[in-house]
Amino acid sequence: MMNSVTPAEIQANGVGFLPGLATDLVIFGFHQNQLKILLLTYQNTSLFALPGGFVREGENVNDAARRTLTQRTSLRDIYLEQFYLFGDQNRHDPAPLRAIMVGKGIQPTEDHWLLRRFVTVGYYALVDFTQAVPTPDPLSDSCEWYDLACLPPLMLDHQLIVQKALETLRARLDFNQWVAPLLPPTFTMSDLQNLYETILDQKLHRSAFQRKMLSLAILERVEKKYSGGAHKAPYLYRFINSPAVSAQPIQEWS
Amino acid sequence: MMNSVTPAEIQANGVGFLPGLATDLVIFGFHQNQLKILLLTYQNTSLFALPGGFVREGENVNDAARRTLTQRTSLRDIYLEQFYLFGDQNRHDPAPLRAIMVGKGIQPTEDHWLLRRFVTVGYYALVDFTQAVPTPDPLSDSCEWYDLACLPPLMLDHQLIVQKALETLRARLDFNQWVAPLLPPTFTMSDLQNLYETILDQKLHRSAFQRKMLSLAILERVEKKYSGGAHKAPYLYRFINSPAVSAQPIQEWS
Repeated sequence: MMNSVTPAEIQANGVGFLPGLATDLVIFGFHQNQLKILLLTYQNTSLFALPGGFVREGENVNDAARRTLTQRTSLRDIYLEQFYLFGDQNRHDPAPLRAIMVGKGIQPTEDHWLLRRFVTVGYYALVDFTQAVPTPDPLSDSCEWYDLACLPPLMLDHQLIVQKALETLRARLDFNQWVAPLLPPTFTMSDLQNLYETILDQKLHRSAFQRKMLSLAILERVEKKYSGGAHKAPYLYRFINSPAVSAQPIQEWS
Repeated sequence: MMNSVTPAEIQANGVGFLPGLATDLVIFGFHQNQLKILLLTYQNTSLFALPGGFVREGENVNDAARRTLTQRTSLRDIYLEQFYLFGDQNRHDPAPLRAIMVGKGIQPTEDHWLLRRFVTVGYYALVDFTQAVPTPDPLSDSCEWYDLACLPPLMLDHQLIVQKALETLRARLDFNQWVAPLLPPTFTMSDLQNLYETILDQKLHRSAFQRKMLSLAILERVEKKYSGGAHKAPYLYRFINSPAVSAQPIQEWS
């Protein structure tokens, strides 16, 4: 989170930056069937950290993240997206920040701005592994690719940030069940189509919609109970899994 | 953004809250084939606004949002998800905040905390329209459902927040093309499957994967150029549209 800031800016104690707000970047590459991310180490510490930085007064938050992305990869026009604001109070831990500053020869005061509670905006970037030029900054020893499958221990909640970025990628591979809370527990295919059409603001082809929905294997048909006119009633469906942030988008593949 | 805060807290000028950080909630319901959201109006102004609030020291940001959601809907265990951090500098406009305070009989100082630059965490909630009990707070005249299709003008960038929430819903209906930046412009089905398997950390069934991918209509096969052994080479594919935050997940339906 610190590495786009210079020692002089650290000593200026937050002047010129938005208070309590940081950015952290999970920069993904794909090489030899491995997902990789960029990590930095700080001088005179053994701390591994995500690239990141702070937001200047008069600077858009997204622009601050993009500034860091460009500095760390030497690439422009990279796919970059926010995915989560990490705002839990228990992420506040001044110890590693103090260690980094001491490692740079700075003795922070007890109320130094970097020792206060910060929230951080998590971003992920998708880059072509072969094009990026990982570049450390004045505060870090190295900027290198690490296999996601065997990361070193990361500082603060950076492990959680990586995990959440990965969950976001996975969920986006397929995420069709999130609409469930807008519907009653069981519904007809026509109900579902109405909802999709309303959200998309577009008419959908009825049989294509039904075929697609059934192909996703996220719906199950509810057993019809016998009643007089039941042979005319439409089928009722429900979602196999209820949605959640960590929805399981996987099963339809296996 | 203000309505979970009391007049006394406003006059305390930010003491006890995280600086520069707000939450705004787009609370969606679905009724009679209309998507609806909850809006508030402020006393003695004609401003319409999203429900929202601030984050207390010692409070998680998500908990602050959930506190507001419960207060405005009288519902617990509602689907609530962050979708974006609105952090552009040009969203800073002290005029409506001043009007709201004056409407409550408060004369703010020039450097009052509510007149400074804020970033806001956007959340959306999906609720059962028939269960929610829209509830204004001490600062607002009303809390009511409005059709998304004909909203009144909203204060600050709240119109943008609603638009972005809607785009998020639409994109999540299908969002399979986002992986494109991790691949070269053309790739084999096997390349694509390797990437999916790596992200999901799970083996996929080859023919099921291919069938699903082709059914999504997001790939097009690249014309094979003649070469000696070409009859044995696998097909190459590319994504029909390149991904973007506002990807068009729609066409596969029509």
